[in-house]
Amino acid sequence: MRDLFYPTSVVVIGVSTNPTNLARGIVFNLMECRFKGVIYQVGKNPGIFAGRRIYTSVMDVPDQLDMAIILTPASTIPAILDECGKKGIRWAVIESGGFGEFGEEGRILEKQVLEVARKWGIRFVGPNCIGIINMENGFSTPFPPIGRLVKRGDISIITQSGGVGISVLHLLANEGLGLNKFISLGNMLDIQVEEYLEYLIEDPGTRFIFLYLEGIKNGRRLMDVARRSQKPIVAFKANIGRSSRRIASSHSASLSSDDRVVDAAFKQCGIIRVHDATTLGNDLKILRLPAMKGRNIAVMSRSGGHAVIAADACETSGLNLVELPRDFLERIEAHFRASVIKLTNPLDLGDLFDLEMYARIIDETLARPEVDGMVFLHTFHSILEGQASRELFSRVIGLSKKYDKPVALYVSTDDQEVSYLKRNLDYPVFTQVVETIRALDLNRRYHEQKRKLESRRAPTVFPVERERANEIVDGAVAEGRDLLLDESLKLLELYGMRVVPWELASSVDEAVRAAERLGFPVAIKIVAPEISHKSDVGGVKLNILSSEDVAKAVWEMEELIRRKSPGSHIKGFLVQEMAKPAEEIIIGGRRDEQFGPVVLVGTGGIFVEILRDFSLRVAPISMDEALEMLEELRVYPVLVGARGQEPLDVESLAETICRISQLLCEIPQIGELDLNPLRVYGKGKGVLILDSRVILSPEGRPSLS
Amino acid sequence: MRDLFYPTSVVVIGVSTNPTNLARGIVFNLMECRFKGVIYQVGKNPGIFAGRRIYTSVMDVPDQLDMAIILTPASTIPAILDECGKKGIRWAVIESGGFGEFGEEGRILEKQVLEVARKWGIRFVGPNCIGIINMENGFSTPFPPIGRLVKRGDISIITQSGGVGISVLHLLANEGLGLNKFISLGNMLDIQVEEYLEYLIEDPGTRFIFLYLEGIKNGRRLMDVARRSQKPIVAFKANIGRSSRRIASSHSASLSSDDRVVDAAFKQCGIIRVHDATTLGNDLKILRLPAMKGRNIAVMSRSGGHAVIAADACETSGLNLVELPRDFLERIEAHFRASVIKLTNPLDLGDLFDLEMYARIIDETLARPEVDGMVFLHTFHSILEGQASRELFSRVIGLSKKYDKPVALYVSTDDQEVSYLKRNLDYPVFTQVVETIRALDLNRRYHEQKRKLESRRAPTVFPVERERANEIVDGAVAEGRDLLLDESLKLLELYGMRVVPWELASSVDEAVRAAERLGFPVAIKIVAPEISHKSDVGGVKLNILSSEDVAKAVWEMEELIRRKSPGSHIKGFLVQEMAKPAEEIIIGGRRDEQFGPVVLVGTGGIFVEILRDFSLRVAPISMDEALEMLEELRVYPVLVGARGQEPLDVESLAETICRISQLLCEIPQIGELDLNPLRVYGKGKGVLILDSRVILSPEGRPSLS
Repeated sequence: MRDLFYPTSVVVIGVSTNPTNLARGIVFNLMECRFKGVIYQVGKNPGIFAGRRIYTSVMDVPDQLDMAIILTPASTIPAILDECGKKGIRWAVIESGGFGEFGEEGRILEKQVLEVARKWGIRFVGPNCIGIINMENGFSTPFPPIGRLVKRGDISIITQSGGVGISVLHLLANEGLGLNKFISLGNMLDIQVEEYLEYLIEDPGTRFIFLYLEGIKNGRRLMDVARRSQKPIVAFKANIGRSSRRIASSHSASLSSDDRVVDAAFKQCGIIRVHDATTLGNDLKILRLPAMKGRNIAVMSRSGGHAVIAADACETSGLNLVELPRDFLERIEAHFRASVIKLTNPLDLGDLFDLEMYARIIDETLARPEVDGMVFLHTFHSILEGQASRELFSRVIGLSKKYDKPVALYVSTDDQEVSYLKRNLDYPVFTQVVETIRALDLNRRYHEQKRKLESRRAPTVFPVERERANEIVDGAVAEGRDLLLDESLKLLELYGMRVVPWELASSVDEAVRAAERLGFPVAIKIVAPEISHKSDVGGVKLNILSSEDVAKAVWEMEELIRRKSPGSHIKGFLVQEMAKPAEEIIIGGRRDEQFGPVVLVGTGGIFVEILRDFSLRVAPISMDEALEMLEELRVYPVLVGARGQEPLDVESLAETICRISQLLCEIPQIGELDLNPLRVYGKGKGVLILDSRVILSPEGRPSLS
Repeated sequence: MRDLFYPTSVVVIGVSTNPTNLARGIVFNLMECRFKGVIYQVGKNPGIFAGRRIYTSVMDVPDQLDMAIILTPASTIPAILDECGKKGIRWAVIESGGFGEFGEEGRILEKQVLEVARKWGIRFVGPNCIGIINMENGFSTPFPPIGRLVKRGDISIITQSGGVGISVLHLLANEGLGLNKFISLGNMLDIQVEEYLEYLIEDPGTRFIFLYLEGIKNGRRLMDVARRSQKPIVAFKANIGRSSRRIASSHSASLSSDDRVVDAAFKQCGIIRVHDATTLGNDLKILRLPAMKGRNIAVMSRSGGHAVIAADACETSGLNLVELPRDFLERIEAHFRASVIKLTNPLDLGDLFDLEMYARIIDETLARPEVDGMVFLHTFHSILEGQASRELFSRVIGLSKKYDKPVALYVSTDDQEVSYLKRNLDYPVFTQVVETIRALDLNRRYHEQKRKLESRRAPTVFPVERERANEIVDGAVAEGRDLLLDESLKLLELYGMRVVPWELASSVDEAVRAAERLGFPVAIKIVAPEISHKSDVGGVKLNILSSEDVAKAVWEMEELIRRKSPGSHIKGFLVQEMAKPAEEIIIGGRRDEQFGPVVLVGTGGIFVEILRDFSLRVAPISMDEALEMLEELRVYPVLVGARGQEPLDVESLAETICRISQLLCEIPQIGELDLNPLRVYGKGKGVLILDSRVILSPEGRPSLS
């Protein structure tokens, strides 16, 4: 892959002498960025552009070539690529549109292009993209004439939209941040996003990665790659709604996933997700600073108002204004010119004009072990204090390095000075108080999450009766139906889960005897492949207190079903013990098209739809993760014993989630399942599954497992 | 008040020849801003500064004076102000610190200053502030040398922090927005924030008002003034947390209010609240555009990626991508050079490079009645398309005016061009897609809220038995205790609310007879002034089914209380019908120190603490507002009949909220009250209050009513 970014001899195909020709932009950018290799040009008609000959075929180029950058009509690409192959070219960037995004005809063309590429062993970027950029050697291939928009740096960008990619370049330029490599993905006909990502993770020039995605083809692979990254990956995943999906498909071949699954998956592999440009800019800046190792910050401000705003922001984010010791504050006070300002954290410097003193206070504050990071809010007038402030900033930067603690630098001064600082300080400069604090908290959360992921135990694999479970599922697959209630419950039991005791009865007599064995009260539920919503057809009776009532219930139910669902094949009647009341939880699982098996746990009972209180993870998950899912629930305080009530058996609940995760991973024919409700009893008393539904994948075997 | 901003002859007091002298900054700013009046200088020592004499007393100034701007040590102010009075000065700006914010000594000084001012009829800004600015006549009095930081415009600023005020000036400058008037409030010893606000609302030069507040002294007055404003008021209310409060009190005398009350109050008077600078900047820009009269927008984008992001943002905000008619889209398609892009909203212009065509599409789109506003996402290269884009923008601005519909303009181009546009377009320019859409939705919500407030009916005043209600409360006040349960319930009944039928019994026999009259089952609750948490001491028995059980319950309760709370004076036993089960709601009320009576409604039952689902308003409220409160609850779908269930009696519930509002407004001795729980029955079947607590204000009569 390195060869893709470091060619020494390239040909731009599609150049003409016409001033509106787009491929000329590619040559322009290569020249503006001082590309360190040789540039050749090929076009339909011979001519001269930029002091170079336009050849009419790559075969005519009197030199060996590493790389072709192609911007010609889609229909011409297969033939051109074939010539490239003959010429010995093994890498290409195809920027032309008109492929898969354009319908059936385009898809046929795509197939041809792939065939030619495979034949010659050519690997390529695109098509339907604006190409790639490598700031290290000036290899800049976009056709929009962006020139030297941004300086060389350590941030690399992978983007599924050229336009958004360019906007992010503007953002970097505006913030004084530098670019290392840039990849416009296009239709990803050959090279996939994960391959680029893998390369950037190893690339020595890249320290930070930004990802703009509108669809995810292979979520599991993306997660695996991202998980291995020691570099922060920030992602903007768009195309989350109904209307955006309409557009996305019209401009770039994209797949959509349930957005909450994306959220969970990113979290599980340490990708930082952003939803707007403001946050993106601030996050890219804050991640450059040393890690916040805890929540404790000290804020130093020249303006009381900014201090107040910062303190508010600490409280609404997850940071803590650490209490600084009395004697430390008094020592600082001794240096103050006057003492009209109370000493506290935030430290209000209102009356202290000696910038030299600021650096000393910051030094002493950072030295304190209880301080994890600082925010310095500096308001100044560039004419009066510009030079002194610049010097102060250099010292602050040094101090942040020395103590390996972040010092977020907020400045309030005129535009020109802010621009100067952003371009020359080589240290991020923030210009919004609240956003600065939020960003510092992101720094903390990112490093905390990374630590968590690194220390995470492998998902537990419980010993289960997989063979017998497979038999049940295979039986249903063979009959082309979902699992029946008794099969679902049996399956869960084979996977080591606790179900309320039950028996399947096929007659009134059997039901009565089953009920007598189980003990009253009991519930009776119909079991028939045609009936998926039992209660809607009167197929459920609860709280039956006697043998006579059991007999009556079964008889009535049979009658009712015969009338209401005449075609039903009643397999039997599930007789079930009535479980004691307790907190109700829902556990579910399904197969996401992009991320595979996903587990979910949520608050059950009557409030389920109002609360919409659930947590979700891509399987397989470990006990740590299952417990973390529970902690995310709003109902969590109740689970651990809120308001003096008995703490519930959170461990059993977490274990059940893990077992469901294992079940989904091991038996790929299961498309969807839920345990609803599941009751959670007191600590040590376990959980009980009352009811369950297992639905098989439409294909029997789904593509991802 | 106009005289404060338009003086013709001013004296700056505190000027010296020392280069570090702060008052010289005031003279500098007046000169930089080309103040249209005469400037005199007074200082301790005679001398010359800026070509003007420094007099040692205002009495020596050989001219009449309208205004003094004072920056001298706090202790000198009373004498200086007295001289000013003698000289005939009636307006002053006192920038000196060291007053109330600095402790007891400062507060004594403040009293003296006020006395002198009252004696001479002097009205003044501050102290402890950076003064005021009027860009119309160059009257710029801050001591920090900010010069001509920002251009003249139509936004006026009132700020409780000088530092934050200056940051906002930087923000305006950066966004190309202009300032009209600026007021740094300081300690507000004389002129209050509401007076400035009242003035700005009438001031012809001001079209938009920004308010930065750390505390609110008189919330009701602020609401009354803001409600009358035809101009948008955007407010950043800081100092919401525990830690910020610590700082705020250290730098500026401030009062804190429950932040949720502030939220409600701002909403009720049409103030737009922001919590960060990004939103502030975008809101100030979007409000300049015509009103969004509905939710329907059309998005036009050159980049498919931006279109996707915009569509996502529409869905997460409250906007709707309107469906454009087929024939309209086809007419547009006829103009396209190629047709690789599917026609839809967002309109992806990917392949259309003719900017002239863009204006025509925007024209036709805005002309459509179903379109309430547009977002135009324009990516361009300034060298190639800069001039054409500038011309396009002028046309777009004209079209927005012509159709009186907002067109939010997002640009992605190089920094220099963005700066040029911001400074010269006289129309807001946005540079972040998501933030642009959010802002446009704010525009819509603002105008919707304004319309709502204007059409709002006056709070209903129900006929109630106020006299008898007062008697009950006065009785409790006289005995220095809160209301007893029977009194609370009686009070609610006198205010027309429906309470579950009850009787107060003072003996076992009376209780039994009461129960028999009411009908079984009944509940029994102890009534004693010493017992506020009845159930904690066994003072509540529910579901009593027979006369014998009533007798037993009363007897046991009496025994238990004698043992557990030996000093209690049992007034009696409340015998209550058991209400039928139904959805449980909580209604509450209390008196906020700054905003007075506040009502609250929320989800009741066991989930109350998990859901934290409530809505709150400053009383008095109308039925409209009460219904709006209910709509804000997450439980609302249940109230109006979710999942095929019976719709509940929302009107009775809303009426109860209004009656509580009236009760709190009419009987100021009530400090706090709650109805918990209150059950809501089916439509037309009303609500029933099961229990209630009424707590009197500590002072008997609170300061605000």
